Amino acid sequence: MSSKPFSVLITGTSRGLGLEMVKQFAETQRPLSMLFACCLDPANSEELQALSKKHPDIIKVLRMDVADPDSIKQAAAQVGSLLGQSGLNLIINNAAIAVYSPFLKSSVEDMLNCYKTNTVGPMCIMQEFLPHLQAAAKHSGMPGMSCHKAAVVNISTIISSNENVNFLYDNLPMVPYRASKAALNMITSCASLELQKEEILCSLLHPGWVRTDMGGSDGDIGIQESVQGMLQVINSMTDKHHGALVDYKGQSIPW
Amino acid sequence: MSSKPFSVLITGTSRGLGLEMVKQFAETQRPLSMLFACCLDPANSEELQALSKKHPDIIKVLRMDVADPDSIKQAAAQVGSLLGQSGLNLIINNAAIAVYSPFLKSSVEDMLNCYKTNTVGPMCIMQEFLPHLQAAAKHSGMPGMSCHKAAVVNISTIISSNENVNFLYDNLPMVPYRASKAALNMITSCASLELQKEEILCSLLHPGWVRTDMGGSDGDIGIQESVQGMLQVINSMTDKHHGALVDYKGQSIPW
Repeated sequence: MSSKPFSVLITGTSRGLGLEMVKQFAETQRPLSMLFACCLDPANSEELQALSKKHPDIIKVLRMDVADPDSIKQAAAQVGSLLGQSGLNLIINNAAIAVYSPFLKSSVEDMLNCYKTNTVGPMCIMQEFLPHLQAAAKHSGMPGMSCHKAAVVNISTIISSNENVNFLYDNLPMVPYRASKAALNMITSCASLELQKEEILCSLLHPGWVRTDMGGSDGDIGIQESVQGMLQVINSMTDKHHGALVDYKGQSIPW
Repeated sequence: MSSKPFSVLITGTSRGLGLEMVKQFAETQRPLSMLFACCLDPANSEELQALSKKHPDIIKVLRMDVADPDSIKQAAAQVGSLLGQSGLNLIINNAAIAVYSPFLKSSVEDMLNCYKTNTVGPMCIMQEFLPHLQAAAKHSGMPGMSCHKAAVVNISTIISSNENVNFLYDNLPMVPYRASKAALNMITSCASLELQKEEILCSLLHPGWVRTDMGGSDGDIGIQESVQGMLQVINSMTDKHHGALVDYKGQSIPW
């Protein structure tokens, strides 16, 4: 781990895993220069606002609707005006919507909504924020790849894995969600090829089956444990994680 | 192979692989009861119309816009009125659109258009035609799974494979297309779980890198060779191919 201050942007931070990530980054991952906490509706995100008041030097709450490319553009411009020449070191694309339907009951609308938010949103964010990541990669002076240099971590899921399609299918068929995350894996694989030369790490992370609004009350682990694990994995990421899907314990997940 | 007459529906048959499939089915895969050749614009699909005039007892040309759920519904109703109680044995979801852009140049519009046609379209077709497939599965009297009993073969691609993401990336980045096909793989995996009990085979087939309008002139093989291979694989499919991705030679492709 570097001891240079680094900057992070996280999406979907009004609740669940995103909110806990903001908390743990602010409280355990110093030195942080900036922590951009993006959410759909800052005015109504009370817990996030409270966190931001506790760490006003670090946390900047931003509005971002990841399903709206214009909103992403605006956020990228805001972030640009707040960042110094050291750029943005890490983006965690965590915002996502869930639809629980099985294949035979999935609607066109649900398929498209999941795709817009869970797949196309992260793509737009990576495209719009690329100059900030490039600035960080150039400015870092570190060799190789790491999340303290320049990185995108896309939150995926074990249920995006064809090899594991049986896993939890009865509990969580979630076909529009699974399809959007399988596509997210693919665009992240593609991005990893295109951003390799610039040493911008692109990785995929499965948070575990977590007891959140999305995962339900039967999940294996709590929010705190998942985020602790994910931050540990994020801090240890190297070139080996580029284009790979790993879980919150750092274990590789087959596609 | 069964010697009972069987019925097939193929999408995207106005040109390329789809047109050649109609030709080879009609000419080499007898006994066929019905061959539904779907395309966007039958009136302007001269080669298909010529084929259909050559085999008027077998080939029925139908209009289907796979990006339009209403058009799929209409086609399913038409097919229902033409089919006997023996149902529809095989659907080949071949229609697809290609977008060639790399990750950093891919647009929201291209992402959504590819997804609508290449992922959501096959889902809607499988949902709408399910009663016809169920009728075929019940009527067949054959044990296990096969394409002569009740099956959906979704045409995918080796470049939907995360393991193979390097393959042809410089020639064919095609990120919106790859993402849509990765999602198609996932929904087919899911469908295979839901349709297992009814013994409706769901499989994914890579046609090879073919010299078509989509594959370009540098492809490895011609259209005829690809379709010959695919028909051989289709005829040999069993329970082992359920939820799997294989190429036109029958070789398994990792996800």
